[in-house]
Amino acid sequence: MYINEKLKNIWYGCDYNPDQWLEYPEVLEKDIKLMKEAGCNVMSVGIFAWARLEPKEGCFSFEWLDEIIDRLYANGIYTILATPSGAMPSWLAEKYPEVRRVAEDGVRHRFGNRHNNCCSSLVYREKVNIINTKLAERYSKHPGILMWHISNEYNIEDCHCENCRENFRKWLKARYGTIDNLNRKWWNGFWSHTYCDFSQIDPPGDHGEGSSNPLKLEWFRFKNDNLLSFLNGEIEAVRRVNPDIPVTTNFQGFWKVDYIKLAKSLDYISWDNYPMWHSDENERSVAVSTAMFHSLENSFKKDRPFMLMESSPSATNWQKISRLRRPGVNLLASMQAVAHGSDTVQYFQWRKSRGQSEQFHGAVIGHDNTSDTRVFREVASTGNEMKNISEVTGSLTKNEAAVLFDYDNLKALEIAQVYRNESKDKNFVEVLTKHFGALWDYNVGCDFVFVDEDFSDYKIIIAPMLFMMKDGLMEKLESYVKNGGVLVSTFASGVIDEFALSFFDDECYPLRDILGIKAEETDCLYDGQYNTVEMFSEEYRVERYCELAYASGAEVIGRYKDDFYAGMPAVTRNNYGKGTAYYIGADFMQDGYKRIYGEILKDVILPLKMPKSPENVSITTRYKDNNVYVFIMNFNNNEVELEMQLDDYEVLSGRLECGRIEAYGCVVLKIRKAE
Amino acid sequence: MYINEKLKNIWYGCDYNPDQWLEYPEVLEKDIKLMKEAGCNVMSVGIFAWARLEPKEGCFSFEWLDEIIDRLYANGIYTILATPSGAMPSWLAEKYPEVRRVAEDGVRHRFGNRHNNCCSSLVYREKVNIINTKLAERYSKHPGILMWHISNEYNIEDCHCENCRENFRKWLKARYGTIDNLNRKWWNGFWSHTYCDFSQIDPPGDHGEGSSNPLKLEWFRFKNDNLLSFLNGEIEAVRRVNPDIPVTTNFQGFWKVDYIKLAKSLDYISWDNYPMWHSDENERSVAVSTAMFHSLENSFKKDRPFMLMESSPSATNWQKISRLRRPGVNLLASMQAVAHGSDTVQYFQWRKSRGQSEQFHGAVIGHDNTSDTRVFREVASTGNEMKNISEVTGSLTKNEAAVLFDYDNLKALEIAQVYRNESKDKNFVEVLTKHFGALWDYNVGCDFVFVDEDFSDYKIIIAPMLFMMKDGLMEKLESYVKNGGVLVSTFASGVIDEFALSFFDDECYPLRDILGIKAEETDCLYDGQYNTVEMFSEEYRVERYCELAYASGAEVIGRYKDDFYAGMPAVTRNNYGKGTAYYIGADFMQDGYKRIYGEILKDVILPLKMPKSPENVSITTRYKDNNVYVFIMNFNNNEVELEMQLDDYEVLSGRLECGRIEAYGCVVLKIRKAE
Amino acid sequence: MYINEKLKNIWYGCDYNPDQWLEYPEVLEKDIKLMKEAGCNVMSVGIFAWARLEPKEGCFSFEWLDEIIDRLYANGIYTILATPSGAMPSWLAEKYPEVRRVAEDGVRHRFGNRHNNCCSSLVYREKVNIINTKLAERYSKHPGILMWHISNEYNIEDCHCENCRENFRKWLKARYGTIDNLNRKWWNGFWSHTYCDFSQIDPPGDHGEGSSNPLKLEWFRFKNDNLLSFLNGEIEAVRRVNPDIPVTTNFQGFWKVDYIKLAKSLDYISWDNYPMWHSDENERSVAVSTAMFHSLENSFKKDRPFMLMESSPSATNWQKISRLRRPGVNLLASMQAVAHGSDTVQYFQWRKSRGQSEQFHGAVIGHDNTSDTRVFREVASTGNEMKNISEVTGSLTKNEAAVLFDYDNLKALEIAQVYRNESKDKNFVEVLTKHFGALWDYNVGCDFVFVDEDFSDYKIIIAPMLFMMKDGLMEKLESYVKNGGVLVSTFASGVIDEFALSFFDDECYPLRDILGIKAEETDCLYDGQYNTVEMFSEEYRVERYCELAYASGAEVIGRYKDDFYAGMPAVTRNNYGKGTAYYIGADFMQDGYKRIYGEILKDVILPLKMPKSPENVSITTRYKDNNVYVFIMNFNNNEVELEMQLDDYEVLSGRLECGRIEAYGCVVLKIRKAE
Repeated sequence: MYINEKLKNIWYGCDYNPDQWLEYPEVLEKDIKLMKEAGCNVMSVGIFAWARLEPKEGCFSFEWLDEIIDRLYANGIYTILATPSGAMPSWLAEKYPEVRRVAEDGVRHRFGNRHNNCCSSLVYREKVNIINTKLAERYSKHPGILMWHISNEYNIEDCHCENCRENFRKWLKARYGTIDNLNRKWWNGFWSHTYCDFSQIDPPGDHGEGSSNPLKLEWFRFKNDNLLSFLNGEIEAVRRVNPDIPVTTNFQGFWKVDYIKLAKSLDYISWDNYPMWHSDENERSVAVSTAMFHSLENSFKKDRPFMLMESSPSATNWQKISRLRRPGVNLLASMQAVAHGSDTVQYFQWRKSRGQSEQFHGAVIGHDNTSDTRVFREVASTGNEMKNISEVTGSLTKNEAAVLFDYDNLKALEIAQVYRNESKDKNFVEVLTKHFGALWDYNVGCDFVFVDEDFSDYKIIIAPMLFMMKDGLMEKLESYVKNGGVLVSTFASGVIDEFALSFFDDECYPLRDILGIKAEETDCLYDGQYNTVEMFSEEYRVERYCELAYASGAEVIGRYKDDFYAGMPAVTRNNYGKGTAYYIGADFMQDGYKRIYGEILKDVILPLKMPKSPENVSITTRYKDNNVYVFIMNFNNNEVELEMQLDDYEVLSGRLECGRIEAYGCVVLKIRKAE
Repeated sequence: MYINEKLKNIWYGCDYNPDQWLEYPEVLEKDIKLMKEAGCNVMSVGIFAWARLEPKEGCFSFEWLDEIIDRLYANGIYTILATPSGAMPSWLAEKYPEVRRVAEDGVRHRFGNRHNNCCSSLVYREKVNIINTKLAERYSKHPGILMWHISNEYNIEDCHCENCRENFRKWLKARYGTIDNLNRKWWNGFWSHTYCDFSQIDPPGDHGEGSSNPLKLEWFRFKNDNLLSFLNGEIEAVRRVNPDIPVTTNFQGFWKVDYIKLAKSLDYISWDNYPMWHSDENERSVAVSTAMFHSLENSFKKDRPFMLMESSPSATNWQKISRLRRPGVNLLASMQAVAHGSDTVQYFQWRKSRGQSEQFHGAVIGHDNTSDTRVFREVASTGNEMKNISEVTGSLTKNEAAVLFDYDNLKALEIAQVYRNESKDKNFVEVLTKHFGALWDYNVGCDFVFVDEDFSDYKIIIAPMLFMMKDGLMEKLESYVKNGGVLVSTFASGVIDEFALSFFDDECYPLRDILGIKAEETDCLYDGQYNTVEMFSEEYRVERYCELAYASGAEVIGRYKDDFYAGMPAVTRNNYGKGTAYYIGADFMQDGYKRIYGEILKDVILPLKMPKSPENVSITTRYKDNNVYVFIMNFNNNEVELEMQLDDYEVLSGRLECGRIEAYGCVVLKIRKAE
Repeated sequence: MYINEKLKNIWYGCDYNPDQWLEYPEVLEKDIKLMKEAGCNVMSVGIFAWARLEPKEGCFSFEWLDEIIDRLYANGIYTILATPSGAMPSWLAEKYPEVRRVAEDGVRHRFGNRHNNCCSSLVYREKVNIINTKLAERYSKHPGILMWHISNEYNIEDCHCENCRENFRKWLKARYGTIDNLNRKWWNGFWSHTYCDFSQIDPPGDHGEGSSNPLKLEWFRFKNDNLLSFLNGEIEAVRRVNPDIPVTTNFQGFWKVDYIKLAKSLDYISWDNYPMWHSDENERSVAVSTAMFHSLENSFKKDRPFMLMESSPSATNWQKISRLRRPGVNLLASMQAVAHGSDTVQYFQWRKSRGQSEQFHGAVIGHDNTSDTRVFREVASTGNEMKNISEVTGSLTKNEAAVLFDYDNLKALEIAQVYRNESKDKNFVEVLTKHFGALWDYNVGCDFVFVDEDFSDYKIIIAPMLFMMKDGLMEKLESYVKNGGVLVSTFASGVIDEFALSFFDDECYPLRDILGIKAEETDCLYDGQYNTVEMFSEEYRVERYCELAYASGAEVIGRYKDDFYAGMPAVTRNNYGKGTAYYIGADFMQDGYKRIYGEILKDVILPLKMPKSPENVSITTRYKDNNVYVFIMNFNNNEVELEMQLDDYEVLSGRLECGRIEAYGCVVLKIRKAE
């Protein structure tokens, strides 16, 4: 499946802002020459260009953009065209104050920054609709246009304006029907929080309600829905004109927006990836975390490739420390995206702006306006390798393992006062990363699977800290395991329902039957405190979480060694129907997780899907027709020797001399599939 | 003296919120059964129930409460009935904006949270008066009612509304008479701070005056007086109906409210105790700190027992880390309260709420709605021990040592820019705790004594960092020592008067005569810097504070060893009248304090009052008629052997086999008094 | 050159606030006696006395001040008279709200604090003009008046009132002419930041534009210009009456205000120095940092002495930890000011106030109102030494080395997102201090030189992190080196122009020709990460910054040893015209800088100007007529032996027995100049 049949190679390019350089015609000219030199075939154009496109209300200026798109196309470079809603022009902010957000203290924001509009503002929606329609009418039939890049890095910041408050109340009313129902679901008898009417409800904030968990959770959901409705409006505008141009918007590598909701409205998923290479002793933690985000993005639409929309060809300028990337790391990082299912490698940004906040952000072309730089050479060399792996385009990953993930669950953990408040998310992301990292160590590809998806495609589903058990989820998990699936559950699971109400009485411990255990208490440890678990005749250190569970049918694999719960189960296995359910009751160090998954996976995943590799060497696969593409990535700063047997392969990219792979090297192989 | 003659046992129970469970009649039924199983005899009811009691303005709903109180009483369980002012209902917040606080930036708070009303609002006072009167009329003659629980955890947060500002000005005018007098007392010539009129005075804040020490100090006092006046209003409402029901309000374990003022309006003192057991290498620091708070609460009314109103039967949900309590620790912690003079042991909360911010707070009954839990068993077993020590009820502590403590002094230290600004309170609480801890090590019970109390009952008074010397206090101390008392003074003492003016000229060094030293300068050390004091032929390390004093009559016990003041006195003793005054000029590590107090106490306290015990084993006593009740508490996680001779005793609770006491064990003995 | 011919000795005195003590006539009497005892000859009077001078609008009260100035003069003590604008009286704040600042959230500040007026307020300017004129009329002919002390510690806090916003827009319009020009210079095409009109521009802030670098930079400049205009107004008022009284205002030891601008309006520079002695293992870092600030202040007007206006004779009360000064350190710190060019040593404060925020700030006279204190004796002894060095008055430093420093450059580094955002100023001050410290180690006096000054007087100019290269500066540097100067440049230099636009294309690397290198990338290291540079056959550790440069003519002195840029130049030397240009591409530890400057200086500075001294012993010189005054300061807490030969000298102050100088000792020598 190709993102756009017009370009069946790996899309390779950049965010490109010619609107900032219209007074430098010689620069615009040179750009084309250098883009070709760098091997680029696509540019994202028009992001933040509203003030150039519509310098005054209703006065449009498209000539410059005509010329840019034409010229790119004439030179074999396609355009991903952006809608410009990510930053409003000054006249809009001035004439229609309602488009600007209102802060929690009631003060309306002044003009400035970006990503700053109120999503509830009908004026803003209307103005976006107009400019989007104009753009679609003018460009959506242009042969050089590949895709729509809707806005930029949508976020869900609070707005406390009257429109948002009113919309929130309406949204609640639509969801709960009566205020009594809301009071009941929110347990508002507590602290006399009972509302008499929807009109009394305000968003949470420092000057208002700061303690209501369900209010915070619903405010999060409302903001996502409000954003989604805004996104849908943007998409409708461009689709109305030409429904054939696929649509994306660029996600970010964080956990703040419920992208599961947004993803459904998009044709393709794209995201912006800014890993902090060389920040640590070695690259493992960055490599695992990046692999995890790639897998997440790849999972939003499992039947098609995703896109790497932004990455820095060099250091960013906004991270704590602007560390350079070592030679080869740009290629390695780019290949890592493709290895996990991306069909594009794009940079922010083609060219450093001369001024403003991102003027020092890494770019293909620096202020010296030359290709005679180390960075350019790395980019051009990466471009070359992208051509070598052209045939990978359209292939897909096929993972047998998946992490069950839900933004509401994470948000509920963030909101709740429970467990380890020292960590806002109660260490959720760290725990998730440890699980994912264990599979990464075994070269087992791992999807993210979402609550409303079909589980049956997976041999193993990992559900770390599944604090919120939404309606029907337990039944899905039961059925999944009964039919032969392997489930891995952990501490802090099955505690609240989707309204953040604790399960009560018989409904408590919804996972008890599947797991064959009942978890009664959760001991949280201070930093620096540990317990030990004995399993497989060895001892493993655990930290942070030690749940106290009683086995009610499960086989005990590991037991605590210390404290008053010494001897109690820490890791269990339960046969349930045709499947198996594991329970990991403590937060192990990475070695413990690796040991446990070694045990779990060997019964579940075919050895072929778990090729052995040296430490910090990752192997992934993509499939197309009868071809298997294997990516071998060495995240070590030294050459290593591979253990795998690769007799019958073709090298598409990289070198593999005598089975050795260079420091930060990446090799892409093609194997004709036997089956 | 019994809190209420109706119940002469240790009161054992919980905060109970049936108002949250009215839709679960089977739960309310089960509650009674489980309460009896747990050995409970009292419940605190109605805290935060305003919205249930008065769902609309003027519409009251008491039937549910009738039923609860009746049913409890029918089952042998008494009720502590709360006034519901701790959380306003939504209709009140909506209809009368003035009841909501105004933040420092002038923005009025929206509805939400709790403990959020403006104490100046006459509307709020009136509405509270109405509901309190209604409650008193309906319930204060009920045989099951033991006591009033006024509001909840009163606090003194800022409110910047016009009413508060105006009240503050009136309060100042009443206190100072003329603006000239205020200007003089506040030293307002500084920085042209001279006011022309009381109307110019505003509370301190980030948008206003942030630098005036006397303004901040008086704002603190005003807020306490305003709160006191609010409290008195609440009490009047319920006493007017029936003056025979005793009244309390639950204090908190911190230093923010001037509880000395509030205490005078109450019949009994109660407080909420949430120690963080198992947060440290061992339990000493938590045990000492908790003992100190118990002693403080016990000291507000020295002629009667105090009450432990809240404690968690398990982990809280709001502390940084939710660590479980080890087996036995619930009993030990409960006994510690009784050991220091409490006649009640009560938990927050009987049952975990299903929703909202405290849904995961420890409770006797969890969401699983069962008594088949470790926590319940610990609670029930503690309930059993409480019955075993029933006869302790009504006994009193009789301590011969006291710490002189004053909230104004602490507040003045917090406000002043002086000494070690790195620590907000200039390390006061840490210093206080070290002194208290030294007595704890010697099993010497220590009261808190307040500025306006009689000192003559004590053999030794410790006055750490008595920065503010209020009018008449020096004379009281002089007379105390002259008449044979032992005074321990420290660095940073006798510096300002009660208006925060520095003593001047001849008035400087008000303690000079008593101590026989003159302190000229105070050297403050950075963290990690130390000096050494030589005393008793040994060397002791000191940190943070090294005062430079000249002996003018005192005997020098310890001298500095390092820096330019080597050889100068660090610890002195002065005979003054029939008494002795010690001066500790440096902040020792705990071992230094222990050594000094070993010297001081041996001449002052009878050996019988200082029973020897192993490390981290604490011994306290309570007295009634001719009986002495001895509490031996082992805060170690291992069994220890006691050194004390206890030939003639009766064991009321706990085990003492071969003079050994188990890990986290507590033994209560009864000795018939010889004298 | 004497500050005022009336007093040709070192001015020795204090801030004196008799206005706070008018109700204590005996104190005012005693002051005179003690001042004489302490050797004082000047007092700064009237700072913050507005409320005493004009207690009601238009009602003036000068009698008390008449008496103070007369009495001081009658006793041989001169007066530095302050304008009182540093703190407004309450009636002014009440009657004219516009004089109070408006916070970023739009809330106008209430009365309180100090240094709190809006500089744009015409009312405030008018009221200041009136009181200044009155003061000038009454006192500027008084024989006891030496100087005007304009206001106090001027600062440039934000004010968001309508006047300030409007003034800012006017200032921008005057500077840029058209909004198009501003948009171009600010690169406002970025994020659609294009303004349509000057009226759309607001100051940066949390509720408005927070991301525009040029806006922030210009707001900084505007605030400085607005302050300057306010200062000029104050000065005009007093000069109009009597142009013969010199004018100063006291600067502070920080980097927030562009003092280069203010300095031009003043006759003499004075500053307030509050070093934190004894905060570290030894005194080197405080001594170097203080020397650096003295040199900066001394450099604002290089043809005349500067003034130490405030210093604490003991601990301050506002620093994190109030550490006492060891014996001798008061004299040493006072001499250090003189050693670097000050003709005054003044304290804040003569006498501790009894109340308010500075009541515990160090003072000559404490609350005990006596001279029988260690601090007083130190002050009196210092006063005595000041008399001994009277003849130093009017002498000047003559430094051959200078640091090129510019507030706009520092501000631009603070604003930019680049390099190491972990440090707000990108470690600029630390890097500057390391360079300065290396010269300090060699006893090479070092001026600060500013962008618009003549460079030709210096043999060596050091330009650390010259990020912003203002118009014409490169040409000045070229010409300087061509004509024989030595330039030291570093990483992070020559990046932006004065509008914060990055240099582009051919304009990039403006220093390339001079340095003979081209810096392509800058690798920033995390804390705890290091590289190594090999130079002079030794290895030196570098941290934080490693710039990757290519030599294009320069001789490579040091090369990186590690990472992918091993072998690349880290330190280079380039002959350019008659001069030499050094490039230091990495941030060395102090030892590396010392080694490099050892090499650089030996070819540049005469050995006589680099007298050898033991570690942490600093030597400086001042010149007058044919006399050379040498200051030898021992910052060690132990006696040391000097290595220098001083056969032909006269000791004015201090002792130098057998070439040894005592702990914290300072010796002032006089040498008749040979040349």
